[in-house]
Amino acid sequence: MERLHELLERIIQRVNINLREPMFDVGPYVRGLIPWQQLIKFYAFYGITPHHPLNFHFCRSNLSGSYFLGKCHVSDAILYKSDIRGDELKRKGDIFQFEGFEIPLHDDETIRIKDSYLIKTLVHSNSHDPENLEDFIIQNTVSAHYTNIHGSDVEGCFLGPFSTVDLTTLHDCVIGEYVYLQVRELAHRQIPAGTVWVSNPDRFDFSFRHDPENLKKYIRLERGAPPDGIFMTFVDQRKGEFQRIFDVVNLKSPFAFAQGSSLNRYAVIKPKTQISQNVLVAQRAYIENTWMGSGANAQENCYILHSRLHGNNVTAHGAKIIHAELENKVFVGFNSFLQGAVDAPLHIGEKSIVMPHTIVDLAEPVHIPAEHLVWGFVRTQKDVVENSIALNELAAISGYFERGAMRFQGDGRLFVDGFKSRIEHILEANGAYCDGTTQIGHAQRSQNISFNLMQPYADGELKGLYPTIAIHS
Amino acid sequence: MERLHELLERIIQRVNINLREPMFDVGPYVRGLIPWQQLIKFYAFYGITPHHPLNFHFCRSNLSGSYFLGKCHVSDAILYKSDIRGDELKRKGDIFQFEGFEIPLHDDETIRIKDSYLIKTLVHSNSHDPENLEDFIIQNTVSAHYTNIHGSDVEGCFLGPFSTVDLTTLHDCVIGEYVYLQVRELAHRQIPAGTVWVSNPDRFDFSFRHDPENLKKYIRLERGAPPDGIFMTFVDQRKGEFQRIFDVVNLKSPFAFAQGSSLNRYAVIKPKTQISQNVLVAQRAYIENTWMGSGANAQENCYILHSRLHGNNVTAHGAKIIHAELENKVFVGFNSFLQGAVDAPLHIGEKSIVMPHTIVDLAEPVHIPAEHLVWGFVRTQKDVVENSIALNELAAISGYFERGAMRFQGDGRLFVDGFKSRIEHILEANGAYCDGTTQIGHAQRSQNISFNLMQPYADGELKGLYPTIAIHS
Repeated sequence: MERLHELLERIIQRVNINLREPMFDVGPYVRGLIPWQQLIKFYAFYGITPHHPLNFHFCRSNLSGSYFLGKCHVSDAILYKSDIRGDELKRKGDIFQFEGFEIPLHDDETIRIKDSYLIKTLVHSNSHDPENLEDFIIQNTVSAHYTNIHGSDVEGCFLGPFSTVDLTTLHDCVIGEYVYLQVRELAHRQIPAGTVWVSNPDRFDFSFRHDPENLKKYIRLERGAPPDGIFMTFVDQRKGEFQRIFDVVNLKSPFAFAQGSSLNRYAVIKPKTQISQNVLVAQRAYIENTWMGSGANAQENCYILHSRLHGNNVTAHGAKIIHAELENKVFVGFNSFLQGAVDAPLHIGEKSIVMPHTIVDLAEPVHIPAEHLVWGFVRTQKDVVENSIALNELAAISGYFERGAMRFQGDGRLFVDGFKSRIEHILEANGAYCDGTTQIGHAQRSQNISFNLMQPYADGELKGLYPTIAIHS
Repeated sequence: MERLHELLERIIQRVNINLREPMFDVGPYVRGLIPWQQLIKFYAFYGITPHHPLNFHFCRSNLSGSYFLGKCHVSDAILYKSDIRGDELKRKGDIFQFEGFEIPLHDDETIRIKDSYLIKTLVHSNSHDPENLEDFIIQNTVSAHYTNIHGSDVEGCFLGPFSTVDLTTLHDCVIGEYVYLQVRELAHRQIPAGTVWVSNPDRFDFSFRHDPENLKKYIRLERGAPPDGIFMTFVDQRKGEFQRIFDVVNLKSPFAFAQGSSLNRYAVIKPKTQISQNVLVAQRAYIENTWMGSGANAQENCYILHSRLHGNNVTAHGAKIIHAELENKVFVGFNSFLQGAVDAPLHIGEKSIVMPHTIVDLAEPVHIPAEHLVWGFVRTQKDVVENSIALNELAAISGYFERGAMRFQGDGRLFVDGFKSRIEHILEANGAYCDGTTQIGHAQRSQNISFNLMQPYADGELKGLYPTIAIHS
């Protein structure tokens, strides 16, 4: 196991060199965080389909419990129960549009992860950095539990638990717990826990910050200990359900599912669940006693329990929905936590948008009206007033606006239209509108995946490291 | 699936070109023999240990249910539930001794399989061809169910079911059902079913042929159909037991086993079985209600039921032992079938040698005395007389000798001493004599194997083919 220890120390050193300004030592947040036995216990796996490019290269790494799809090179890294989903990578010949530039890709894009330690992290989409079109780079970086790295090159960073870096290139930053960032590019910054910040320079800027004391109940990270709080308790309580499906090699779903839908065999589907057509349930999603209407999706690390999703609902990576009814086309952003209860259900009207990293934890029944944007922290119906706005009201804004702790600056219409078109893009990409022959998306392309399993050396000085493995079509 | 069909036809063509003299069409013995669904159903797997060199390369092949260890390159081949065991390959720097030559190896040996279709075949040991020291070659070859290719380069051959090619280089040969060959080199020959032939030119020549009509009850192969007979029925009846152990990814043995022993997690161990120290049970072995004495081993495709093996017993690849008591150091050769019954048990005295491909199928209790060589077909105590010889009697022979249908020519002492030293070598290699620190062998080195699983494309024109996979340390 000597080499695995060396690898961890080497990664800490690399990240710390990047983080010398701001001065930050990732060591106490990483050392001993995942017991060594865990790094040896779980197999890694990769998907093979005729619909995705295939090119993997794994070298001098530990990949415990992690999943890979598409094209991905990993070297000198520890990837613990992470999902590296290369099904939206750019392809050779694609044209990348950026501020008037039209740049053709000269090769298929590849995810490149090196000198990094990712814990239960989701990597998805493709690099939105115009400087690195063929490479989606994650380097000299530590990401904690349930981080989303979405379309973002990340170099020399520490990403706190349940944080999301979305379409943003990051250099040498420390990102706090539950931060959501979508700001194009950021360097040498420390972003405090609970910040939700969407910024498109010269167009709009949306920001909110969760109350730090309140947030600690949900998620907190302290030196030398794993993250703690309601979010962690919630997922830990359901860990056992996943064990069973990881223990067997091939698993036939006990559920008949509708045309055009796909339930990943590494998802947990519990009774009584209804899966309608064109539904996509990704690996590590958890669905229980829920109606998934036509074209609805549940992405990685989503938990949807005791709920009814009417159709074409997007539930982004890591979102949780409990005791809720979501009308048609409701969007729930990354890592949002929507917790109703039997006697305090949540109802959201159609086409409403739940901002990423929103916490709804109900003490009474709450209704969020149709075509609203909701953010922040909602516990009662009264909280909805200070944490939401009608989309048409937001679209009419030009200049500065504030409501509760939310600040908006810029062109509201661009913000709303941008969000709407992104939701449409997600639904299309996921195959929500597939008629069987056209508008095929992830749901249809993911129906026939073969999974190959990799394990590390079980003994000797290489114990815990995987051999060098290269796979291509 | 188009490519998989093309691959099969291409293999048939390659083998038939080699077998134009003797003119033989392998097509009817291969086409449709394994249903296409089977070729897609079972995962392939390879072992990773710190004790074996690691280098795999798989390309344009179907590997359904097959197992790989050591160094192995497979291209344009179909390997169905075969075991490619590279744990006895020669290493760089080894000195190969051959008739006065001492040839140092300039590289690790690699098993190279191309343009071939192997069905439930075992490949083991290392190439004994002095012309190909670094390559153990299997090319343009079809092997049927339960063939053993042991230390033998094979080019352009058809190997019938339950045949064994042992330490013999074969070119352009057709080998019948249940043939055992250990003759150094053979080209352009057809060997009839049931032949057992051991020949060391200028030293000795042992030969026997099973009665063709009697053999058909045990194993027969006809054009266009899978092999049939008692051997096939016996293994098919126990197939279900293996399903369970292949379905789960990692399996902890429910048995406590003794120091220095190893039970492969892909073996079936049924109650009430006793595993003593330094016992080796290989993958795809089946043990039920049996006492495995210290240093005993059960190799691939062995079945040992309701028996007592006193210790240091070698049960070679594919041998079956039912209702038998085997004293110390009894050797049972490849694919032998020793079937006693509750009221007709078999007893074999110590240090006796059961020739490969011997059938003992008892109608009454039978005792084979100590230090005897037994061959052929034994049903009663009377049959033992015509199918065995005391080792010291055999060692005294010089010249021609016959007993029953067995013919011997040459130096009996060389034959007996050669056999004895080979048995000692096998026991040493398997770790039968390990004291915990010295004389470590397969039993001890195989205790901590990680298994990685590979599956083919599940869809599209590549359906059934595995992607290109390269693995090294």
